[in-house]
Amino acid sequence: MTTLDALDPAALAALHERLAAQYGELQARGLKLDLTRGKPSAEQLDLSNALLALPGEGEFRAADGTDCRNYGGLAGLPELRAIWSELLGIPTAQLVAGGASSLTMMRDVLTYALLHGRDASPRPWGREDVVRFVCPVPGYDRHFAMLEALGIEMITVDMTETGPDVDAIERLVATDPTVKGMWLVPTYANPTGDTTTLEVAARLAAMPAAAPDFTVMWDNAYAVHHLTEDEAKAVDILGLAAGSGHPDRFVVFASSSKITFAGAGVAFLAGSAGTVAWYLKHLAYGSIGPDKLNQLRHARFFEDAEGVRALMRRHRDILAPKFAAVEEILEERLGGRGVATWSKPLGGYFVDLDVVEGTARRVVALAKDAGIALTPAGSAYPHGDDPRDRNIRLAPSFPPVEELREAMDGVATCVLLAAAEARLAR
Amino acid sequence: MTTLDALDPAALAALHERLAAQYGELQARGLKLDLTRGKPSAEQLDLSNALLALPGEGEFRAADGTDCRNYGGLAGLPELRAIWSELLGIPTAQLVAGGASSLTMMRDVLTYALLHGRDASPRPWGREDVVRFVCPVPGYDRHFAMLEALGIEMITVDMTETGPDVDAIERLVATDPTVKGMWLVPTYANPTGDTTTLEVAARLAAMPAAAPDFTVMWDNAYAVHHLTEDEAKAVDILGLAAGSGHPDRFVVFASSSKITFAGAGVAFLAGSAGTVAWYLKHLAYGSIGPDKLNQLRHARFFEDAEGVRALMRRHRDILAPKFAAVEEILEERLGGRGVATWSKPLGGYFVDLDVVEGTARRVVALAKDAGIALTPAGSAYPHGDDPRDRNIRLAPSFPPVEELREAMDGVATCVLLAAAEARLAR
Repeated sequence: MTTLDALDPAALAALHERLAAQYGELQARGLKLDLTRGKPSAEQLDLSNALLALPGEGEFRAADGTDCRNYGGLAGLPELRAIWSELLGIPTAQLVAGGASSLTMMRDVLTYALLHGRDASPRPWGREDVVRFVCPVPGYDRHFAMLEALGIEMITVDMTETGPDVDAIERLVATDPTVKGMWLVPTYANPTGDTTTLEVAARLAAMPAAAPDFTVMWDNAYAVHHLTEDEAKAVDILGLAAGSGHPDRFVVFASSSKITFAGAGVAFLAGSAGTVAWYLKHLAYGSIGPDKLNQLRHARFFEDAEGVRALMRRHRDILAPKFAAVEEILEERLGGRGVATWSKPLGGYFVDLDVVEGTARRVVALAKDAGIALTPAGSAYPHGDDPRDRNIRLAPSFPPVEELREAMDGVATCVLLAAAEARLAR
Repeated sequence: MTTLDALDPAALAALHERLAAQYGELQARGLKLDLTRGKPSAEQLDLSNALLALPGEGEFRAADGTDCRNYGGLAGLPELRAIWSELLGIPTAQLVAGGASSLTMMRDVLTYALLHGRDASPRPWGREDVVRFVCPVPGYDRHFAMLEALGIEMITVDMTETGPDVDAIERLVATDPTVKGMWLVPTYANPTGDTTTLEVAARLAAMPAAAPDFTVMWDNAYAVHHLTEDEAKAVDILGLAAGSGHPDRFVVFASSSKITFAGAGVAFLAGSAGTVAWYLKHLAYGSIGPDKLNQLRHARFFEDAEGVRALMRRHRDILAPKFAAVEEILEERLGGRGVATWSKPLGGYFVDLDVVEGTARRVVALAKDAGIALTPAGSAYPHGDDPRDRNIRLAPSFPPVEELREAMDGVATCVLLAAAEARLAR
């Protein structure tokens, strides 16, 4: 296979013509396919349909006798927290079960920090002249949109196969007290699929920070979302943090949204005893307690941590062939052409595609005009601004595999056409 | 019946002795009764037990075909919003269905105002030197605790039988731009049971306000919570506001927590089209959408607005005898003694008891030592400070009626004993 760069002008022109024709055919098919968001498919959601009739009439008592139909219990149902305690390797007492959205819990943590400050804050973050966050890129667009909405400035560092560029982070954090925190999806990161190693995690826990209230938003959204039998093990980040003398540094988030029902699951927050007390203190003025019935429903459905793991293996059986199809088509159509590289994730919900620099927006526009919706180019960067205009996030989970193959084949055509256009324009 | 004030010193001393003996007997019974919070009773919760098995296996599609098991739909499920639209007399388009807590929605509205400002705000409320709220008293303790936590100062006005003291409010609001808003429970207010009249509501809608972003937090928590067939009708507050040229002034809250399951219901927010757009814009950075399955569960359970009304009549059948028992015992034990006045609510969850000035704390302490938990004295006032130390909120809903009678008889003894003590000390 020849790379595009190696083609002589005539061959390039011929290739471009063939690709333009291919793209015309693609458009003519009138597709309507969607690879934009990391949504579970209907087949995955079906795995949890038993939840739809749980806890069942007459069933409303928690293990400790609590009537889950009534108010109270701000920290959530102990038996459900116990299950996630085992999954995440975090003591139940340090783990809160909340509402249906971990995103809301993240928003609340940042809001409390802005309005009240963390325990170690000299003043509320909102009274600082400037607050900055370190953002590994490519990253999760909703993380960045939240910071933008809250007026928190973003400094990017690279995401690598071992986690975020910890050398860069150590430098940023050591001397600048305006750097108040960072985002991290430690396991099967959105969108790269990279998992932060124990070594990198230990350095994040131990590094000196100029801000006494430096906060890592440890969004472990894909903690148990393995795509292979080579399963990433949870790093004991709270243990590392406590052992390094920074017990309150990390706020851990997790969710059952991509385990049971998206948007109707249970979200979790964890931290040191101090962090949990801080969170609950501020939560209390805006909540009497979470929806305990949904927590009971989930506890009954899973029974135990192994119940979650067993369900995740069934998700894997549905998702792995989709990721394999993406890999197969990308390799077949783009391999050896020098026009793209892509991630080969062992878990999570995304494939991260890097195309020829300066062509990501063009690829997404071409795909759109052919009826294939992709996440906007640049969305994995703060303010939607990918400085090299090359990154595209692919979300293979939602469409049925045949639609996915069709969409990916179309995407490959768009990537090649945009690359040929860029070569011709040079 | 002789009032305590009319007793001569010897008679008063004799009465005190009898009451002290009575109180001793009360203590000896080792009661453990709780009148603190407005919680539905188990019998009330049983009315909604069908919800525990809804929507039912295989049932997850909204009327428009939406798969409620997946992400999305920030404004909530249209069919459930339509039901509350009819109940509240507010167009569905202006009504958002959210998570399980209206308190959280209120917190979010205030937080967005502090961090971002409302559309008409010169700047975010958090950048003002001072922000003040008008608080009708006695009022809801959680409203006041929220303002305290958020650093918003409170100015009290009296709650009256026709609603808050609107003359006082007009004066406070007209010239002082730091007065940014007020709380109001318009129907069967917590704790007085008073319902704001159409006339007062119209004045609140029409009154000039120095703050262009003056905001009334219209917490219609008890909109359909009637205790008699003399049912308070919903005031069309958003229509009044729009007609008076202040369309964005009111943010309306409601909840099914005291209709179905407390803390596991669905909360609602309503306002002008502009207010709803403002709310959803800020909500979007912290939420992908509410728990639509719980909304579907509720929509299926109720079927329509009449389903809600029918359920509320069954609640009334359980609650009315409890309120009648409170009234009967208060009248029998305290009537004509000049030691207390109390509300005779037509709806809601509370009886508001005013005892001899300076004795409310003593009454609550006496009750506590006799095993009867009451809401802390003063809790219906900002910072828990009742300047006359006379107000006690009674919550008759939770205990079975026999326990309630026992508790109320004990409370009456405590009220009389504290009054006699106060007279003796004069």
